[in-house]
Amino acid sequence: MSGEPINDLSRLCIHTITTKPWGLEEAVSRYAEAGVSGITVWRQALEGRSIARAGELIRSAGLEIVSICRGGFFPAESESDRKNAIEDNIELIHEAAELGAPLIVLVCGAVPGLELEEARKQIREGIEAILPHAESQGVKLGIEPLHPMYADSRSAINTLAQANDMCQAIGSESVGVVVDVYHVWWDPNLMDEINRAGEKILAFHICDWRTPTEDLLNDRGLMGEGCIPVRKIRGWVGSAGFSGYNEVEIFSNRRWSGDMGEFLNHIIDAYLDYS
Amino acid sequence: MSGEPINDLSRLCIHTITTKPWGLEEAVSRYAEAGVSGITVWRQALEGRSIARAGELIRSAGLEIVSICRGGFFPAESESDRKNAIEDNIELIHEAAELGAPLIVLVCGAVPGLELEEARKQIREGIEAILPHAESQGVKLGIEPLHPMYADSRSAINTLAQANDMCQAIGSESVGVVVDVYHVWWDPNLMDEINRAGEKILAFHICDWRTPTEDLLNDRGLMGEGCIPVRKIRGWVGSAGFSGYNEVEIFSNRRWSGDMGEFLNHIIDAYLDYS
Repeated sequence: MSGEPINDLSRLCIHTITTKPWGLEEAVSRYAEAGVSGITVWRQALEGRSIARAGELIRSAGLEIVSICRGGFFPAESESDRKNAIEDNIELIHEAAELGAPLIVLVCGAVPGLELEEARKQIREGIEAILPHAESQGVKLGIEPLHPMYADSRSAINTLAQANDMCQAIGSESVGVVVDVYHVWWDPNLMDEINRAGEKILAFHICDWRTPTEDLLNDRGLMGEGCIPVRKIRGWVGSAGFSGYNEVEIFSNRRWSGDMGEFLNHIIDAYLDYS
Repeated sequence: MSGEPINDLSRLCIHTITTKPWGLEEAVSRYAEAGVSGITVWRQALEGRSIARAGELIRSAGLEIVSICRGGFFPAESESDRKNAIEDNIELIHEAAELGAPLIVLVCGAVPGLELEEARKQIREGIEAILPHAESQGVKLGIEPLHPMYADSRSAINTLAQANDMCQAIGSESVGVVVDVYHVWWDPNLMDEINRAGEKILAFHICDWRTPTEDLLNDRGLMGEGCIPVRKIRGWVGSAGFSGYNEVEIFSNRRWSGDMGEFLNHIIDAYLDYS
């Protein structure tokens, strides 16, 4: 079942990275002014700022903090690097709590040359190591499967099935999955795995896949600019019980080199027309 | 079980596209001179040539013709385009027979905006439409799953599981699968699906995945230049019963702009050291 058309912005969230040239303060005021309802804060947007004050600023502008992006990157060749990654994720959990973000999105990590099975084992160990901190701080952890083209260096978790399996193996109320259409749209088992995830779906990210895609990282499209059936996938996620935000997360050198105000208008139009 | 080290070139096949700047005649004489045993001919390498004479030239140089690349691209928006694709594939079957190639590699096709399920249905219909011609000409058809990053415009068949499912659904002795490490290395179910494919594996393609990959199409690496466990996957394919060629298929703007003779030497070294 396809998602119902969207008529308002009450479920629209934007990732600060989407409008990367704007500092956090400008993003917050522009999003609020445009009627956007939620914000996902990229960690680098907090650099050099008081995190508690950033949280207050966002809330006083009327925006809901949906999540903080991103933790993870657990696998490493050396044990000391793995320990550092765990320490860094624990710090991020405290930052999330201070900001007032209920969720950390995990890009789980991969290392070129480290076998994927080993990386997956290290990811699980990493999540289990930080889990008590997440639980005590009331922050959830969302495992985001990344597109298989990132299996070399960004994530050894590349399908929703794998993310669901890991959730199940860890078995904590505080761990769920993040569904990003860009990463999973091609998957022949997507609908089944979305159903299987059910209430474990903690976040839903949208954008589009451009043809041709000219850069593996930073050539994402606006909804409607590509081939992803965003509305259909949103319907599946909704049927599985998810009622949270639709988060626009677009990395695009092309867009970032243009005018951010215009881009924000395009995002809103595309959100209403194609999401 | 990892593959045994390779000590000779008796199972080395090279795709003509790998040394794209060379015309067919030069590729044939250079491969033969270097001790390469097999060749997979890309269709464009035959342009403007007598196909029967090209076959004779290759055989008289002592090379075995492993396959012809590539058929497929069945899905299309219009019925007339789908018919044209079928006609073109039937023509290719006759070209393969004339060349003396026992196998056609199928890049099944996808169309941006055409739903993947519909594309998959059209792929199956296309293969079934050309199948009688393949059977009567004694040419096999190999379904090659392509990496999910090509699901927009090159193939709606993106995992070996899907290729195996389609083989099974079609149920012909003349249809099998092609395993290319570049497309499937990330897949958590790879070993199981290789075992499931068993004697249906008609070809095995090797190269490597570079980090960072700078171009979605033409930045493949030589074995050893990236993160793919080529030898391990070759071991799985061998355990599943495959005893054919290891085919080096590398699209690389970087390599194509250099000296092909040197590249051929590098291929042979990498083949012995990392495959």
